[in-house]
Amino acid sequence: MRKVILGVAVSLDAFIAGTNDDYDWCFTDQDYGLSHFFKRIDTMFLGRKTYEMTLAMGENGAGGFPKLKEYIFSTTLNKVKEGATLINSDIKTKVERIKMEKGKDIWLFGGAGLTTSLLNLGLVDELSLAVHPILLGGGKPLFSKIKDRINLTLVDTKTFSTGLVSLTYTLGPT
Amino acid sequence: MRKVILGVAVSLDAFIAGTNDDYDWCFTDQDYGLSHFFKRIDTMFLGRKTYEMTLAMGENGAGGFPKLKEYIFSTTLNKVKEGATLINSDIKTKVERIKMEKGKDIWLFGGAGLTTSLLNLGLVDELSLAVHPILLGGGKPLFSKIKDRINLTLVDTKTFSTGLVSLTYTLGPT
Repeated sequence: MRKVILGVAVSLDAFIAGTNDDYDWCFTDQDYGLSHFFKRIDTMFLGRKTYEMTLAMGENGAGGFPKLKEYIFSTTLNKVKEGATLINSDIKTKVERIKMEKGKDIWLFGGAGLTTSLLNLGLVDELSLAVHPILLGGGKPLFSKIKDRINLTLVDTKTFSTGLVSLTYTLGPT
Repeated sequence: MRKVILGVAVSLDAFIAGTNDDYDWCFTDQDYGLSHFFKRIDTMFLGRKTYEMTLAMGENGAGGFPKLKEYIFSTTLNKVKEGATLINSDIKTKVERIKMEKGKDIWLFGGAGLTTSLLNLGLVDELSLAVHPILLGGGKPLFSKIKDRINLTLVDTKTFSTGLVSLTYTLGPT
């Protein structure tokens, strides 16, 4: 079965963006395992706000991204851009169906709302966090409103010369 | 000069205690570098709430702890237990003076209020986080109300068989 992987850059205090939605603290000087990650996936899950952010960034914002099948999760949108698929109901059933389809793994790109929904529904299989050596002090938290404790299994750690630590965990039955 | 070290167990979502002040998720099956850490320190900084919590736990709560000189930080208390020292004003001057004294390093034990004050005053030299493989989803955050971004330098990582990852960072000029 295809895995849903939350893959994200995060500060040591667990923010994915600073107080002004800033990402300038994210390291871009090295590959940090990203090209290997991109080989594993062919599909992307985006929440509504994250989707609108990527639209606003335009094609230029997608530099370096592989061509991915996109699913947009929203209860307020009626349509999404050509080629993408809108999911606005029955999240659990639809995501389970997508996971059963043939294909590579799925990148859960965020944001926090969709991440929380999928975590609470038990639909996330892996966390891959690029922990940056910085305290942002505030901003957009990676996790919020998770209902229950979620036990994780550490499967990989990588330490880079810049102080970035990549932590990979699996969720659910192993 | 003596270093002030924030040494603490933390969930992957950066909580130091669960929603009911619970710590039962903290691993106690191994030493996790604690005995080495205890050799480095002879002094402890505690915020008022943390101090009162340790008082409530009684002597039994101190099992395994080395004998440490204790400084209690509070603007509301008038006195503290025998042997401990109350700091209720001029935090910066007093902590700088303590750091200049002869002695081993100092364990900043918490909680979040004191940690934030000392971080914002630039008085913390090292972070040593025992990152547990769990999402608590809520509780007492390790960091809150930090004024400015704080850049960190990763100096050590250790991965344990249970999935605990120990991350050590220095702050300020190296």
